[in-house]
Amino acid sequence: MPDADIDRIRALLLARPRPPELAERRKRLDALSEQSPLPQDVRTQSVSANGVPAEWTTTQDADPSRVMLYLHGGGYVSGSITSHRAMVAEAGRQAGCRTLALGYRLAPEHPFPAALRDALAGYQFLLSGGFDPSRIALAGDSAGGGLTIATMLTLRAANDRLPGCAWCISPWVDLEMTGASMTGKADIDPMIQQPYLRELAEAYLHGANPRDPMISPLHADLRGLPPLLIQCGSAETLLDDSVRLAGAAANADVAVTLEVYPDMIHVWHLFHQQLAAGRRALDAAGHFIRAALA
Amino acid sequence: MPDADIDRIRALLLARPRPPELAERRKRLDALSEQSPLPQDVRTQSVSANGVPAEWTTTQDADPSRVMLYLHGGGYVSGSITSHRAMVAEAGRQAGCRTLALGYRLAPEHPFPAALRDALAGYQFLLSGGFDPSRIALAGDSAGGGLTIATMLTLRAANDRLPGCAWCISPWVDLEMTGASMTGKADIDPMIQQPYLRELAEAYLHGANPRDPMISPLHADLRGLPPLLIQCGSAETLLDDSVRLAGAAANADVAVTLEVYPDMIHVWHLFHQQLAAGRRALDAAGHFIRAALA
Repeated sequence: MPDADIDRIRALLLARPRPPELAERRKRLDALSEQSPLPQDVRTQSVSANGVPAEWTTTQDADPSRVMLYLHGGGYVSGSITSHRAMVAEAGRQAGCRTLALGYRLAPEHPFPAALRDALAGYQFLLSGGFDPSRIALAGDSAGGGLTIATMLTLRAANDRLPGCAWCISPWVDLEMTGASMTGKADIDPMIQQPYLRELAEAYLHGANPRDPMISPLHADLRGLPPLLIQCGSAETLLDDSVRLAGAAANADVAVTLEVYPDMIHVWHLFHQQLAAGRRALDAAGHFIRAALA
Repeated sequence: MPDADIDRIRALLLARPRPPELAERRKRLDALSEQSPLPQDVRTQSVSANGVPAEWTTTQDADPSRVMLYLHGGGYVSGSITSHRAMVAEAGRQAGCRTLALGYRLAPEHPFPAALRDALAGYQFLLSGGFDPSRIALAGDSAGGGLTIATMLTLRAANDRLPGCAWCISPWVDLEMTGASMTGKADIDPMIQQPYLRELAEAYLHGANPRDPMISPLHADLRGLPPLLIQCGSAETLLDDSVRLAGAAANADVAVTLEVYPDMIHVWHLFHQQLAAGRRALDAAGHFIRAALA
């Protein structure tokens, strides 16, 4: 089933190769979001979530008692509230809830566990704002997907109440890059290659052990996690991170759903305004969250 | 999330252990179906599907242009139209289509490839009856799940048109039993243990190679298969067959969804009248089929 839309996205990415300097990389990811203007009916509001920069979005039909806490991707070194704004807002619309997108601290300035600490601060901000954990969906893409799992593991270890469900898009959960798709899909993935991931991992780890389950949740015992939706594309080097995470969750008696979208690339949802498969994935995630939250 | 209903099913199974004689085993599986009477609104009709005994079911709201061809489980040596009747009828109701359940030939009297030949005969029977392939869902549980994949691979190899989608419940796709869950879940699985599977495999293989992709579709190149839903329980030794099949399908660019149901045992759908998780799984499969068929 060839998809003409994804070919246009590939061409767009190819026309804007990733620059070598970090500041330029961060700008590039934010600039990609200019392809996806925010619909006029979305209301946004900046907020400090226990000291972490954050942004609310809401649409008219959003249930104010339900919220999605969103952790953007960008390999722990880039990505922002800006880069993911339109996608997060649309995900909230499909899920019928408000969203709180978190601008957590980035490496190399702030290596592990800064991002994890900020994610936890964001979650506590929601609790202190009166949200019931069973009405919080925790979500993230790529590095933010790994962070989603690590955040729940930290909450579980502290005997804190877990969110009602979690949603991971193309999660990065193995910072040693041992998945077979890392080479098997290298020829077809226009964005995520092993040398780039090694750079990112080095910046985030800052000497920490990449097998630490809070860094590579693939190695965690996932017992007790809430219903989990994992979505990934079949044309990405991180495919096996999703498949192996689903297997680990299944083995640990988690209610896990893995959805693989043929020919889709890493976090194709970002291009949902141009890509029917991106809209389908957001729609499926919305259904999942509506059904899973109390 | 402990499930009291599944504990009652476990007790039921424990109270009726599998007898050593083949004829008694076959009777036992049919007798289990007495726990699940057929709802009065289901109409059934026996038919010869190109020489293979088969049964139509339909409910009032079924779209007569859509059909689910169902291949029951039972390790290629037992199971029947009778044993799976109530579950197949309910699956058809949820999917909004007619069903055709197939009484394919069983081993050891009829080893590989008899069952596969009969499955193909059933599919051709639907085509010659005027069904469009895009309106056929192919489905099966356990051995029937493996047979579902092998049937599509055979159609693909012959350049025949494939069904519109496929649904596998707890599929058995590795007749060498190499999955980690084969031992990892042995303590908790009340039905499917390795020595039993070895007996079944021997009967079906009759000397054939267990790594033949038509016998263990885990080893097949799955490229070109239609959208595929795989459902399995987290408390079954065959869990890894599902996870690995999903991984192989994902790698081959198939639109695959894997759903894992915590604490559920092998083909728990059979007990859907007693088990909410069985009804949820049939409901999810119905949604999948309604969306996937033309």
